[in-house]
Amino acid sequence: MLKINGSRLWDSMMDLAKIGATLEGGVSRVAVSEEDRRGRDLLRSWASPLTEDFHFDEVGNMFFIRYGLQPEAPIILTGSHLDTQIHGGRFDGAFGVMAGLEVLKTLAEEDIRLPCGIGLVAWTNEEEARYCPAMGSAVFVGKQDPQSALDCVGLDGKVFGEELKKIGYLGKHRELNILAYLETHIEQGPVLENEKIQIGVVSGAQGQIAMDVEIFGEAGHSGTVPMRLRKDALVCAIDIINSCRSLVVEEGKGVFTVGTFKLEPNSRTTIPDKVLFGMDLRHPDTDSLQNLSNLIKQKIKEKVATHCCQERIEVLFQKEPVVFTESCVKSVQSASDKLGYNSLLMPSGAFHDACLLASKVPTGMIFVPSQKGVSHNPTEYSSPEQLEKGANVLLHALLNLAEKGALLK
Amino acid sequence: MLKINGSRLWDSMMDLAKIGATLEGGVSRVAVSEEDRRGRDLLRSWASPLTEDFHFDEVGNMFFIRYGLQPEAPIILTGSHLDTQIHGGRFDGAFGVMAGLEVLKTLAEEDIRLPCGIGLVAWTNEEEARYCPAMGSAVFVGKQDPQSALDCVGLDGKVFGEELKKIGYLGKHRELNILAYLETHIEQGPVLENEKIQIGVVSGAQGQIAMDVEIFGEAGHSGTVPMRLRKDALVCAIDIINSCRSLVVEEGKGVFTVGTFKLEPNSRTTIPDKVLFGMDLRHPDTDSLQNLSNLIKQKIKEKVATHCCQERIEVLFQKEPVVFTESCVKSVQSASDKLGYNSLLMPSGAFHDACLLASKVPTGMIFVPSQKGVSHNPTEYSSPEQLEKGANVLLHALLNLAEKGALLK
Repeated sequence: MLKINGSRLWDSMMDLAKIGATLEGGVSRVAVSEEDRRGRDLLRSWASPLTEDFHFDEVGNMFFIRYGLQPEAPIILTGSHLDTQIHGGRFDGAFGVMAGLEVLKTLAEEDIRLPCGIGLVAWTNEEEARYCPAMGSAVFVGKQDPQSALDCVGLDGKVFGEELKKIGYLGKHRELNILAYLETHIEQGPVLENEKIQIGVVSGAQGQIAMDVEIFGEAGHSGTVPMRLRKDALVCAIDIINSCRSLVVEEGKGVFTVGTFKLEPNSRTTIPDKVLFGMDLRHPDTDSLQNLSNLIKQKIKEKVATHCCQERIEVLFQKEPVVFTESCVKSVQSASDKLGYNSLLMPSGAFHDACLLASKVPTGMIFVPSQKGVSHNPTEYSSPEQLEKGANVLLHALLNLAEKGALLK
Repeated sequence: MLKINGSRLWDSMMDLAKIGATLEGGVSRVAVSEEDRRGRDLLRSWASPLTEDFHFDEVGNMFFIRYGLQPEAPIILTGSHLDTQIHGGRFDGAFGVMAGLEVLKTLAEEDIRLPCGIGLVAWTNEEEARYCPAMGSAVFVGKQDPQSALDCVGLDGKVFGEELKKIGYLGKHRELNILAYLETHIEQGPVLENEKIQIGVVSGAQGQIAMDVEIFGEAGHSGTVPMRLRKDALVCAIDIINSCRSLVVEEGKGVFTVGTFKLEPNSRTTIPDKVLFGMDLRHPDTDSLQNLSNLIKQKIKEKVATHCCQERIEVLFQKEPVVFTESCVKSVQSASDKLGYNSLLMPSGAFHDACLLASKVPTGMIFVPSQKGVSHNPTEYSSPEQLEKGANVLLHALLNLAEKGALLK
């Protein structure tokens, strides 16, 4: 059976990780920085000899296309992103691009031409570490207009379009005839490792609702106000968080996190009169997400009444769940089965370029385990064997999709 | 029946409140400031003509003594403090001094000489707003040595002894033969108002234990880590606070407050890996305070184990409960009964000079209601009628104690 070269894949991962390498063993290769330029140039030196067509578009997304049997044949795209968090790791994004590169190397080595073209893409700025939002794939699928992306001002006050031009990757738009998009990625969570699973067949991505909740109580002296006469905003907030968390745990398929919390006046001897906390609710199903969100709002109002406090609830943003295309998910599943790897059908907990691509083209994703589920951190790690398996699944899923390419349109 | 003059008391309260008056209607008369000097001078102009003996000691405590039938007779002391919080109110401290002054005026007006002397005291720096700790009464009872008080550096970097000398109130030590100490004060809590009670007969003061608790969990992505695999430091902290609070509420006589709370990394999309919060536990009984504190520590360890987190518990300080002298408490109670006021035997939730005096001389306190329980705030308020009743109780408690003066020694 055709397989990619695992040690060659690992070597290219490690070579790429030298660009922006940090003392802690991670990578700092922030979007549209000098390190990003060097990473892009390295990819270009590797991928150009393997492909007949290279271009970058109006927001710097890089496309390398290995023609199918006919140069004008539609293409199946694969890839991810080269940019990292400020204190990022070696695998997030990089793996998806290097896995696609390794597939191109394997096809070239074996001199294989498929009925359709195979495109390798490196999307600009997925991490949102310097510029927000992730405009590379957003502009590509038409969810963001190119000019607003170019005008985007970064954390350092510098304008995206100017910086992109400076590093030499401001290109122009070209229409591409895309059959499907597949992205390989580290899980960035602990599920696969915990369950001893080799491949995550990604079914889609969780939807997300972010809320700020503010609770108003009544301040008072911690020594003189009896418990029964208090309107303690902290006690109310705690009761809310506890019971909303229980709602989500009982439902069973979502995740619920309170990640931010602020108390006022924050004095040891004063009963708190104000608490502000941020809730993050995610669920793979649209109706369940909405339903849980409504139950949470009800629960907040109920608890606020019990504690004689008042509330302000603000929904900051809401992202609908993404469901990947059945044909793509099946291709990934059957590739994994064919290779004899054990796998788990799972939603992605995090955002990926594939979540945006899914709105435009048939899309699927492949996960490999992340050590301890750690990501966005220098200690982020997946083993050479884990990456090799992921790239093999990518190869066979692409072959599978290419064979039935006509069906996808 | 002999009574004080309520409107004269109110007028002296309002005149004193002009010194350091703030735009919000409160008072800012911080210890050993220019405003403190003016307040002291005003008190001196009022109290000196009513008394035969005036002096201030080595930390500026002011004593005005109206002789008993014999100049050398022991004295019963009453008073409180003239200093306020930076954004303080008109009643905290001032009422205890003005009530004592009003008693002196009443005795002088009626030309009454008691078997013992009556002393009016204004203790230096009870509020700890500029200098910490409250050294006036602490030095008087021998709990702090005078030199350490004089060397104390304030929030503004200025040395207490130098500032005291500058305002002209650095005096010298004199032994006083004290039979008892009574202090009149606003409640600074909501109990009396809530229960429609006119007089609080203070039984003593709650003890206090202040702890810092730190919980260590494991950070993770809010989207990718399933609920069952989390070690969420916030969820653990919430469970701890909830169950410790229940312990105190069930016991029934203490108060429990979490007034400070800090989360790390405090990012909306990251599971918190560290929480630091401050607990304040108070109880009027020594054994119960210690028992609850032990139960709380046990509960923390139990919950930390349940949530697979780790903990650090630090007891910052512990103050033992104070029990006031039976004879003094009874005098206050019978004075209130005699005057036909309804009353409640209650511990003080806050610290007062009387808490220190109790370690040296027979001590009691009288509370009057505080509007909405608010104190240390410009909106602090007690009505002229409420203050009048408190001062009448002080007068009759003093008369009662003076009659049986010999019994107290």
